[in-house]
Amino acid sequence: MTLSQVAVMSMKLSQIVDYLETQGMACSLLGDPSVSIEAVNTLEDARGGEISFLANPRYERALQTTKASAVVVGSKQAKANGLNLIRTADPYAAITAMMVRLHGHRRHPNWGVSSHAEISETAQLGENANIGPLASIGDRVIAGRNLTVYPGCYIAAGCVLGDDVTLYPNVVLYEQVLLGSRVAIHSGTVIGEDGLGYAPVKGKWVKIPQVGRVEIGDDTEIGANCTIDRATLGATVVGSGSKFSNLIAIGHGTKIGADCLLVAQVGLAGSVTVGKHVTMAGQAGVVGHITIGDNATIGAKAGVTNNVEADTTVLGQPAVPITECKRQFAVIQRLPEMRHKLRHLEHEIQELRAQIEAQSHLIEEHQPDQPIAR
Amino acid sequence: MTLSQVAVMSMKLSQIVDYLETQGMACSLLGDPSVSIEAVNTLEDARGGEISFLANPRYERALQTTKASAVVVGSKQAKANGLNLIRTADPYAAITAMMVRLHGHRRHPNWGVSSHAEISETAQLGENANIGPLASIGDRVIAGRNLTVYPGCYIAAGCVLGDDVTLYPNVVLYEQVLLGSRVAIHSGTVIGEDGLGYAPVKGKWVKIPQVGRVEIGDDTEIGANCTIDRATLGATVVGSGSKFSNLIAIGHGTKIGADCLLVAQVGLAGSVTVGKHVTMAGQAGVVGHITIGDNATIGAKAGVTNNVEADTTVLGQPAVPITECKRQFAVIQRLPEMRHKLRHLEHEIQELRAQIEAQSHLIEEHQPDQPIAR
Amino acid sequence: MTLSQVAVMSMKLSQIVDYLETQGMACSLLGDPSVSIEAVNTLEDARGGEISFLANPRYERALQTTKASAVVVGSKQAKANGLNLIRTADPYAAITAMMVRLHGHRRHPNWGVSSHAEISETAQLGENANIGPLASIGDRVIAGRNLTVYPGCYIAAGCVLGDDVTLYPNVVLYEQVLLGSRVAIHSGTVIGEDGLGYAPVKGKWVKIPQVGRVEIGDDTEIGANCTIDRATLGATVVGSGSKFSNLIAIGHGTKIGADCLLVAQVGLAGSVTVGKHVTMAGQAGVVGHITIGDNATIGAKAGVTNNVEADTTVLGQPAVPITECKRQFAVIQRLPEMRHKLRHLEHEIQELRAQIEAQSHLIEEHQPDQPIAR
Repeated sequence: MTLSQVAVMSMKLSQIVDYLETQGMACSLLGDPSVSIEAVNTLEDARGGEISFLANPRYERALQTTKASAVVVGSKQAKANGLNLIRTADPYAAITAMMVRLHGHRRHPNWGVSSHAEISETAQLGENANIGPLASIGDRVIAGRNLTVYPGCYIAAGCVLGDDVTLYPNVVLYEQVLLGSRVAIHSGTVIGEDGLGYAPVKGKWVKIPQVGRVEIGDDTEIGANCTIDRATLGATVVGSGSKFSNLIAIGHGTKIGADCLLVAQVGLAGSVTVGKHVTMAGQAGVVGHITIGDNATIGAKAGVTNNVEADTTVLGQPAVPITECKRQFAVIQRLPEMRHKLRHLEHEIQELRAQIEAQSHLIEEHQPDQPIAR
Repeated sequence: MTLSQVAVMSMKLSQIVDYLETQGMACSLLGDPSVSIEAVNTLEDARGGEISFLANPRYERALQTTKASAVVVGSKQAKANGLNLIRTADPYAAITAMMVRLHGHRRHPNWGVSSHAEISETAQLGENANIGPLASIGDRVIAGRNLTVYPGCYIAAGCVLGDDVTLYPNVVLYEQVLLGSRVAIHSGTVIGEDGLGYAPVKGKWVKIPQVGRVEIGDDTEIGANCTIDRATLGATVVGSGSKFSNLIAIGHGTKIGADCLLVAQVGLAGSVTVGKHVTMAGQAGVVGHITIGDNATIGAKAGVTNNVEADTTVLGQPAVPITECKRQFAVIQRLPEMRHKLRHLEHEIQELRAQIEAQSHLIEEHQPDQPIAR
Repeated sequence: MTLSQVAVMSMKLSQIVDYLETQGMACSLLGDPSVSIEAVNTLEDARGGEISFLANPRYERALQTTKASAVVVGSKQAKANGLNLIRTADPYAAITAMMVRLHGHRRHPNWGVSSHAEISETAQLGENANIGPLASIGDRVIAGRNLTVYPGCYIAAGCVLGDDVTLYPNVVLYEQVLLGSRVAIHSGTVIGEDGLGYAPVKGKWVKIPQVGRVEIGDDTEIGANCTIDRATLGATVVGSGSKFSNLIAIGHGTKIGADCLLVAQVGLAGSVTVGKHVTMAGQAGVVGHITIGDNATIGAKAGVTNNVEADTTVLGQPAVPITECKRQFAVIQRLPEMRHKLRHLEHEIQELRAQIEAQSHLIEEHQPDQPIAR
């Protein structure tokens, strides 16, 4: 129901194969080219008229039971009793292309510029602005074309936004936040709040004005209820093409490179430098003032306390290279056994000592003139 | 002060005992039945006219100092110098019943349908709707009776809500979120945002349209500032009767069973299957694509990386059965000692070897014709 | 650009030295007193006309390359080729004073009391209230002077606020939240929501009315998207002068002392008692019903499961005194090596036993009448 609601068209399997080829994805059809497809769905939920996919081998069993009219699979996937299959090198990329083609991306409500929004006279919005009611846009805000702002958003004075920016409901941008183009920020996310900047003076915390800014690059997408501190001085930066999940905290002055992927509840302290194409798994944490190299991967719940080399994967608390970490985990499982063995060896050694003593006596007995070195 | 403000009535201890009996809680009064009670409070804060309770033995000392006029205690609780006691099998359930009776649940402001709310003409709200100002309700939204929506909420197009739903301020529901009946969602929580769904194509992250939905069951309560991703395809599900605390992240396509309890800052990745009556303690994390059995308990900060059997408790990172985990913790405490002992044994063995060598020489001396096997 | 935008004045280095002296910070100028300063910036980003600082030795190299016109450094800092230096005991406190002097704190929009705000007729606001549009203030709310409320905030019935309170956009205060004076709460933070209070009755979770309150002390600052539960009974408390970062969860009935510092994503369960001047690093978690002493420090990601003594630092999961924890970490790194060594010792012992056996036979051979004790 959900899917048919949003389905915008239908395509025959032959057309789908042609389309994927035009997208540069070589593929072959195993089955009936005339079958008509209206939507994409999971192997589990799919019904007639829907196409599904198999990317993760652990779900292969589902091929036996799926009601999908066709399934996109890997190039080497075996036939599955009469199921229409489209074989291709990267089923995940192929199904993504089909989801875009058949379903498309979210269509926003069309508010134009709502008379129930609060927009400063000094704000400059580009053409085709779509501003919902109950949104606030402050003084001297400058935005490019095709800006979409949902209700409950607050854009403070001096923010600068590129083209094709989307702010979902209740997003807050503090003053002087800079967003690139094609940026999407999900509900409840706050960008540019003050960081935890205090100077300890006689046992009290004296606030340091946070006069820096935040710069969010092009083609970034930030999840829901995240918080990205403004810099104390200079800028907090999120690089172009980076994608955040939800409930992520970024400290003041931290600089994240391009095309990074941050999973939910990741936290970075202040003044961290993160390279390009870094992945951080859920609930990972990074202490302040360190550097993480390009293409590094930080495991789930890792506690990163030292610099991480480029192209390495770290895990654990404190985080260490993953092979080392897994070895440690493996041994920790065996710790009780090791402790037991250690006790056992002690006893054996005592036993051996006793035997040696006994032998010494025997030997001494008939050569009392020659004491044994102990 | 707070409590007397919200107190709605007063009852004598005899009436309280009668009431609890009618609620199926056998209890006995040790003290003066005519004492009048207006409110419930903690042992520490209670004053005359208030009743308190003792459920956690660690607070038993407080019985000596409380100013409460009466205390609900366990069946075996000893007298406490002249303090009025109500003994019952489950003091916690009993005091809960008394809180409901004496204080009742939150009374919402009565807005009717505010003329300052933004409500689509195509939205269908059931009878007795209570919609605050500054709330937004989108196209084709369908809601049952007694809907309460606080200011700042946004309900996107196509959402379907049951009866007696309450949305506290600034809750956001993306399109096609389905809420059951008697659902309460606390402030700032976002439901139905896009999950972290991207296909890696040539080093870039290509967005996968998230065309699935979210289904929240009957009698659920979701805390503040949580995030529940919509499914990529199909549904993300929270089962009936489940209760969430705050700042919880649920990944796309994850399915949580009935009557689960999730504590603050818990995070579940995508495509996780959680059974019924599962408890997850604070800051626990669960990786994607695994299954957690009915009645399982996940300890605080646990990092769950494998399936969890029904009726088991796991703890640690990676999470293992709690007994195993505690044994590991215990041994880890002793690691430095173990390391020391290991060094010690090495020395002892060298010593023994030396002695054996010495003996060999002696023995050889007077039987040179017989070499010793080494 | 950002900085010059907000710069409000300029001062000569001689004037800066004089000003710091008047602030009780003895300092000496090494360089040209006539140089004019307009703003503060980082060593990295600073240009001519800007002053920077060096507090963390790891950045000392930047002294060679900074374009700042002057740098505030420690008393013992050596000259740096012609760079104007101001030496003082605490460069961090000094630069803070200069940031306040040159940049000042955030200037809020001036809304007066917006006609587009929803304010109850029974609310009592002190003089000079600054209430933005789209804000809601409920019945019987009482606030002191100089209240600033940004758009999208919701202040429920019966809240009491002191003087000089600032609520940034989309802050939510549930009923009966008490804020002291000079309190600042950042965007999206929710205070007074119900805690996870349910009684287990026949496998279901029965809600316990949360009739307590929240009390936030004077001079506190709470970050963005935090959640602070109201107490079930009595009060949840945040002590005067305490500062929170973002995404922090505080459970019901927890009481935090004065001048504490909580870093992002920290979580405290319910009924925790925290002393004065306690620091909790990022993602630390504390279980319910325990006590943390004055001046304690909880390390990043620590899992605190037992009381923490005053003036101690704990780390790890479960958290232990830091020295112990670091020793454990160190040994864990060596676990694989230990395991290897353990195996090695086993072999050696077998070898020794073999030798002893061999000797025994030899000895027995020519004294068969005397068996050796084993």
